[in-house]
Amino acid sequence: MKKITIHEVGMRDGLQMEEKLVSLDTKIAWINQLLDSGVDIIQIGSFVHPKYVPQMAETDDLFRHFSASGRNNENVVLSGLVLNEKGLERGLKCGVDMFCMGVSASETHSFKNTKMTVDEALTRIVKMALETEAADKIVQVSVQSAFGCGYEGPIAVSQVERIVNRYVDAGLRNISLADTAGHASPAQVEKLLETVLKIDDQLDITCHFHNTYGMGLANCFSALKMGVTTFEASFAGLGGCPFTAIAGGNVCTEDLVHMLQRTGQSTHVNVTKLIALAKEAADHFNREMDGKIYKTGALTY
Amino acid sequence: MKKITIHEVGMRDGLQMEEKLVSLDTKIAWINQLLDSGVDIIQIGSFVHPKYVPQMAETDDLFRHFSASGRNNENVVLSGLVLNEKGLERGLKCGVDMFCMGVSASETHSFKNTKMTVDEALTRIVKMALETEAADKIVQVSVQSAFGCGYEGPIAVSQVERIVNRYVDAGLRNISLADTAGHASPAQVEKLLETVLKIDDQLDITCHFHNTYGMGLANCFSALKMGVTTFEASFAGLGGCPFTAIAGGNVCTEDLVHMLQRTGQSTHVNVTKLIALAKEAADHFNREMDGKIYKTGALTY
Repeated sequence: MKKITIHEVGMRDGLQMEEKLVSLDTKIAWINQLLDSGVDIIQIGSFVHPKYVPQMAETDDLFRHFSASGRNNENVVLSGLVLNEKGLERGLKCGVDMFCMGVSASETHSFKNTKMTVDEALTRIVKMALETEAADKIVQVSVQSAFGCGYEGPIAVSQVERIVNRYVDAGLRNISLADTAGHASPAQVEKLLETVLKIDDQLDITCHFHNTYGMGLANCFSALKMGVTTFEASFAGLGGCPFTAIAGGNVCTEDLVHMLQRTGQSTHVNVTKLIALAKEAADHFNREMDGKIYKTGALTY
Repeated sequence: MKKITIHEVGMRDGLQMEEKLVSLDTKIAWINQLLDSGVDIIQIGSFVHPKYVPQMAETDDLFRHFSASGRNNENVVLSGLVLNEKGLERGLKCGVDMFCMGVSASETHSFKNTKMTVDEALTRIVKMALETEAADKIVQVSVQSAFGCGYEGPIAVSQVERIVNRYVDAGLRNISLADTAGHASPAQVEKLLETVLKIDDQLDITCHFHNTYGMGLANCFSALKMGVTTFEASFAGLGGCPFTAIAGGNVCTEDLVHMLQRTGQSTHVNVTKLIALAKEAADHFNREMDGKIYKTGALTY
């Protein structure tokens, strides 16, 4: 039995894909429910310009709210995504516990997102990550499109390996491998992790899968078997990446926790509370969500 | 790389769940598309009384049609599900290649379906299976609710082991383990298969999963890793069992084949043709189906 860490990213990777906005009050209510559910880390939002991503406009306000008024669960880490120095500056002022930042393994995806090559982006992100650590904050660096790219197709294992090596050389070991386009298959997960986990024995690897082609939970189980114990997921299966060709939701948190609990892993997440929240999200967006157990209920034996 | 056998059960396990009937002509057209897609076995229907399952009323006609007029793909095996001696008698008269029959591992499920205990049902099915073999037909025997029961919850591994042993003692080695209620988790699949595969080294095990709780493909991948190479699945993810408490569709054939092909397994199934059929089914039933890739398209690299 392994202790699993759940990093809930629905408030960021989920909501940024949704046309219908969520009010500040509703966001606060949903984050309170997430805090109450027992997930380990909650990604509150990203520090992007509200003109480009209006769904993330309240990110600073949300962090200020939860820093000022305290939280109903002090053990939970609040994370924020930063894309550049300006975002980092904002995040350092409003109470972010953990900063997430990264580069894409795909040159095309990198250029579309950042107007930089992978190497240029890497130099910049490593510098930002070290500055963040110097400010005494938790840092997670990521490799986006690590399992394939909506524009380019295959991404070489050696390309991911090279980026992870750069992170490790800089002393950064909290690393997320993100399947931004949802292309990963479980055999590929095994293969990539086999290579990556050999790089350094102190690596703290997170996996972030999307369920675009239905393989999300299969990929999580493969990663678990390889030794990964931290997963990023979205309640109700919200999510997707607006900058890739085909958007598919994140792995659904309550479905993932349900699977992990049924495979004998240890999480203190309360799926009943996540199911209630997923139902609220389905009502808010007025559509059937990708998640399964918010419809069927969890198996309880 | 392993040669995978796909047993397409949408025309039976899928359609029996759907309220809206499918006409004989449409069924013929869909089966022709399945024949053309390259799946290995197609379950045409079940020999039940049309009063109870009107969706299966044309089963004899369909077999007669494909026996009389020939098929556009002679390599494909046509299977039919039989529940009792009367069904077997009908099936032997209309050109079934392969007879599927089985018992539930759950006493409650068995009694609700057959008014018999598991042992009574087993005695009857073994007798029927041997008669079918004597008639020179292929026989597959199954263990339904092998991974959990919608009524009873957990099913002991020893119960499944006992049933498989009874089959093997009778010389029946083509055995399907069916997750009728969709309760299986990938770790459980490993555990059950580890026990079952030890029973006899000539076993030909098929796995039949439902995607009720989202774990369908994860379970297939675990079964594959354990050595299983035959899978039952439904195009578009049609299906479910009307006799269990919560009905969830079968694993979606085109999603499964897509995953298998992406994990380097060998199937000669054409997913593009299955996607076209899944779209027709979605149009016919006028709803979004459980399958993924009929919406996104397959990854082609």
